[in-house]
Amino acid sequence: MSETRTELKELGEFGLIDHLTNGINHCQASTVLGIGDDAAAIDANGQLLLLSTDMLCEGVHFNLMYAPLKHLGYKAIVSNLSDIYAMNGTPTQVVVSLALSNRFSVEAVNELYAGMRKACDLYEVDLVGGDTTSSMAGLVINVAVTGLVNEADMVKRSGAKKGDLLVVSGDLGSAYMGLQILEREKEVFKAAPSAQPQFEGFDYMLERQLKPEARKDVIELLAQMEVKPSAMIDISDGLASEALHIAKQSKLSVKIYEDKLPIDPKTVETAQEFNLDATTIALSGGEDYELLFTISQEDYDKIKGNPSLTVIGYMDEEGIENSLITRSGQAIELTAQGWNHLA
Amino acid sequence: MSETRTELKELGEFGLIDHLTNGINHCQASTVLGIGDDAAAIDANGQLLLLSTDMLCEGVHFNLMYAPLKHLGYKAIVSNLSDIYAMNGTPTQVVVSLALSNRFSVEAVNELYAGMRKACDLYEVDLVGGDTTSSMAGLVINVAVTGLVNEADMVKRSGAKKGDLLVVSGDLGSAYMGLQILEREKEVFKAAPSAQPQFEGFDYMLERQLKPEARKDVIELLAQMEVKPSAMIDISDGLASEALHIAKQSKLSVKIYEDKLPIDPKTVETAQEFNLDATTIALSGGEDYELLFTISQEDYDKIKGNPSLTVIGYMDEEGIENSLITRSGQAIELTAQGWNHLA
Repeated sequence: MSETRTELKELGEFGLIDHLTNGINHCQASTVLGIGDDAAAIDANGQLLLLSTDMLCEGVHFNLMYAPLKHLGYKAIVSNLSDIYAMNGTPTQVVVSLALSNRFSVEAVNELYAGMRKACDLYEVDLVGGDTTSSMAGLVINVAVTGLVNEADMVKRSGAKKGDLLVVSGDLGSAYMGLQILEREKEVFKAAPSAQPQFEGFDYMLERQLKPEARKDVIELLAQMEVKPSAMIDISDGLASEALHIAKQSKLSVKIYEDKLPIDPKTVETAQEFNLDATTIALSGGEDYELLFTISQEDYDKIKGNPSLTVIGYMDEEGIENSLITRSGQAIELTAQGWNHLA
Repeated sequence: MSETRTELKELGEFGLIDHLTNGINHCQASTVLGIGDDAAAIDANGQLLLLSTDMLCEGVHFNLMYAPLKHLGYKAIVSNLSDIYAMNGTPTQVVVSLALSNRFSVEAVNELYAGMRKACDLYEVDLVGGDTTSSMAGLVINVAVTGLVNEADMVKRSGAKKGDLLVVSGDLGSAYMGLQILEREKEVFKAAPSAQPQFEGFDYMLERQLKPEARKDVIELLAQMEVKPSAMIDISDGLASEALHIAKQSKLSVKIYEDKLPIDPKTVETAQEFNLDATTIALSGGEDYELLFTISQEDYDKIKGNPSLTVIGYMDEEGIENSLITRSGQAIELTAQGWNHLA
């Protein structure tokens, strides 16, 4: 081993992935799409099989002090399904690995599994295998998901064209504000364990954080409208980070308009209460599990007026600064703060 | 949540899996085989896609004090490929999730990845995606693997027939003895950090523990010999545990002959040195990644005399005690000690 020591945070998550996967070759003829999109694509005799995986670690992705195990199981499945929808595919099977310490009881693991099974039922996905082991430390949940898509229907991150409109489903930032509310109540509880948590009025934000949904409905809606996005990604790290992925992988730049960002009014109000900027939260909050995609301008008439879809910007040529156009008309550089877990 | 608390160790790993997965239904027509075998099988337009996953946790499955990271990466891939070979399939793609704490440097992660890439190259498997995150505690590696098999060629655990011969590839118990040697040297090192580890002569056992191979060659050999096993499993938990899986899932019983167990002479000698019983180690050591399978008696002539394959017993009807026939001819009940990680 080399004697140099480079800290992980010097590269960050995306830098580390680029570094590790640089020069990886494929020898299987069936590998259609490898590392670098929401899922890999494997030729399955005419259709494409999609494959993706996500790991959730206690203390990093969730805190068992406030995440009910049933919701956590539900979220672990849903966040994976979201990656398959982001390829314009249909998720079909999941396998689940669990590392458990002996502080968990069978009843606790039942709750976790009940949430996973509920998500599988609702999204019509089969739980077909997994691995269960013990953990010396916290709970770790890994899900791998397969899905199917016809080759002509698959949407990669790299297909956006200059002039395409940037569209997002639903609204942004509420999952992050939900987390802030939970963190605040945790601190209150630590200081005064008899205090009742103040959750009234925050239902939407809490649900977005604790029990998110994947946008299967948006994929179905786009198919009905006969709109095939040119590029698509799901929002797990944050809007800015995901928009930059589309721009980079499509060899373009992106412009986002602050006044177009869809944010729930109660989330804006709560952000103010917490002295946080709602735009920053919408751009970098993460865990919204909405779909971010680009469409040809010709398709604009098909989607306009749909309450689930908002045009928030457009794709420009490569070499122009990726930017956020503020309400005052100023262009500021768009950067990915995202969730740098390794920082 | 119920107020009863049942400890995980009361169920054990297999009991917990049975409990959690009881009554799981499939709604996808493509799900051919779900939970309960080495891999799930998914219809891929004529062929079957195999899917399996395994999680390795620091402090449970490996100790970084003696497992070189490159070997660990290699083993993480190989142990997953072994599950695909155990279905008589060909592994094709893997996705890797890593949870890293910041005590790891980029150089350390490079080593881990170098081992994974080496295994992928050697077994001609494509690394097509993954997830990298931080960990509050130890290193966690999850691999999910896909493979292909023609439906007519797939071998499940449940297909053994009464009278079928039980066959194992390679030899047994050396991986476990390798672990004992490493543990002994760790204790010596703790007591006297300047002492040199005593590894001379133990190369085979150490390699079996630290850098095992999956039996791709055995699958190829069986195909050449035109022998299709009636049931097959890979040996990760231990021979006894795996033989009982075949017996239970095939609704049969199993008899294993102590004097037939293939054990490397140096491993027998080392077991004696450690005051351990070589038969117990062969039965319950685990991590050998050999293939255990059953064949029709008619196929005996095709495999006999092959140095890679040993007939160690046979399948009998259901309801008879699963037993080990000792060298003295005594029948003792065969029980799975295996690796009960949850105990």
